[in-house]
Amino acid sequence: MKNRPNREIKDEVQIRELIKKGKYVTLSLCNNNQPYIVTLSYGYDPLTNTLYMHCANKGLKLDFIRANPNACGTIIEDGGYIYNECGHWYKTVVFFGEISIITNIEEKRKGMEILLNHLETNEDVIKTKLNSNIKLYQELVVLKFDIHEIHGKSGR
Amino acid sequence: MKNRPNREIKDEVQIRELIKKGKYVTLSLCNNNQPYIVTLSYGYDPLTNTLYMHCANKGLKLDFIRANPNACGTIIEDGGYIYNECGHWYKTVVFFGEISIITNIEEKRKGMEILLNHLETNEDVIKTKLNSNIKLYQELVVLKFDIHEIHGKSGR
Repeated sequence: MKNRPNREIKDEVQIRELIKKGKYVTLSLCNNNQPYIVTLSYGYDPLTNTLYMHCANKGLKLDFIRANPNACGTIIEDGGYIYNECGHWYKTVVFFGEISIITNIEEKRKGMEILLNHLETNEDVIKTKLNSNIKLYQELVVLKFDIHEIHGKSGR
Repeated sequence: MKNRPNREIKDEVQIRELIKKGKYVTLSLCNNNQPYIVTLSYGYDPLTNTLYMHCANKGLKLDFIRANPNACGTIIEDGGYIYNECGHWYKTVVFFGEISIITNIEEKRKGMEILLNHLETNEDVIKTKLNSNIKLYQELVVLKFDIHEIHGKSGR
C-alpha cells in the first residue's frame, strides 16, 4: 500500500495514441441530476478532434443526449491488476464535450467511414455491406462527440 | 453489418459472476447538468449488494459525490473486437444507485476488507501493511456504492 500518485500524461502525442488504439469508449451522460453510463465502439477523427459512434435507434442513451448534450467520456488501456500491491496498471484518457445525433446522411457516411477506418483492418468489407443496403444506412444512428477538453493519466 | 440485437442477461447468478470477476468499475457522476466519469478498483459485498472503492483524499470525483450522490456504474468483460463484422464481444453490467463517502473508521475497515478479499489472492499482505500504519488508514478515502437497480447485457 505504497503512496503511488497517478501521473498525468501531458504529451499530446501519447494521448492521441491512446485514443487511436482504443476500440470502445464509455460515456457519462446525465439529465435532472440522474447520471447514466453507456459503452460504444468508436472511431476517432484527429483532424476535428471528434469521436464517431454508432448505435441502434433506441435506448436510454438517446433520450439522455436529446435532453442534455453535455458528456464526459473515458478510454482505458488496461494493463491488469498487480497482486500484493493493491494496484492496477493502466493508461486512460478522460474528456469533456458535447454529443450530437447526426441527421445529415452525408455526415453519417463520413462518420461511419472514420469509424470503420479506426476499427477495421480492411474497412471495405463492411463498407460494401453498408452501401448495398441504403435502408440499413438510414436507420443507423451515428453520434458525434466534439471533444472540448482532454486529460491523460497513467498509474500502477 | 448484420442485425445482432444485444441480449439482456436476466440470470442473477450470471450478473453476480460478472461483478465478482471484475477488477475495476467505471462510474458516471453529475452535478448541474455536467457529467463526470471516473474508474476505480472495487470490491463487491454480495450480502448487501454494495461496492466498496478506495481513493486518495482529493480529486473532482469527491466534489461531485458531495454535490450529488446519484451514480451509475458499469463493469465490462471485454472479449475483443470482431474484425470484418464491425462487432465487439462483451458482457456488461450497468447499475444505478447512490455513492457515499465513509467516515466511520470501522466501516472503512470493513470496506477495505471486502475490497482486498475481492481483488487479492492473499489479502493478508496488504492488510498487514495497512494495520501497521494507522495514519495511512485514516487518510484513505473509502467509498460505498449502494446498488438499487442492475442490468446485465451481452453482445457480439
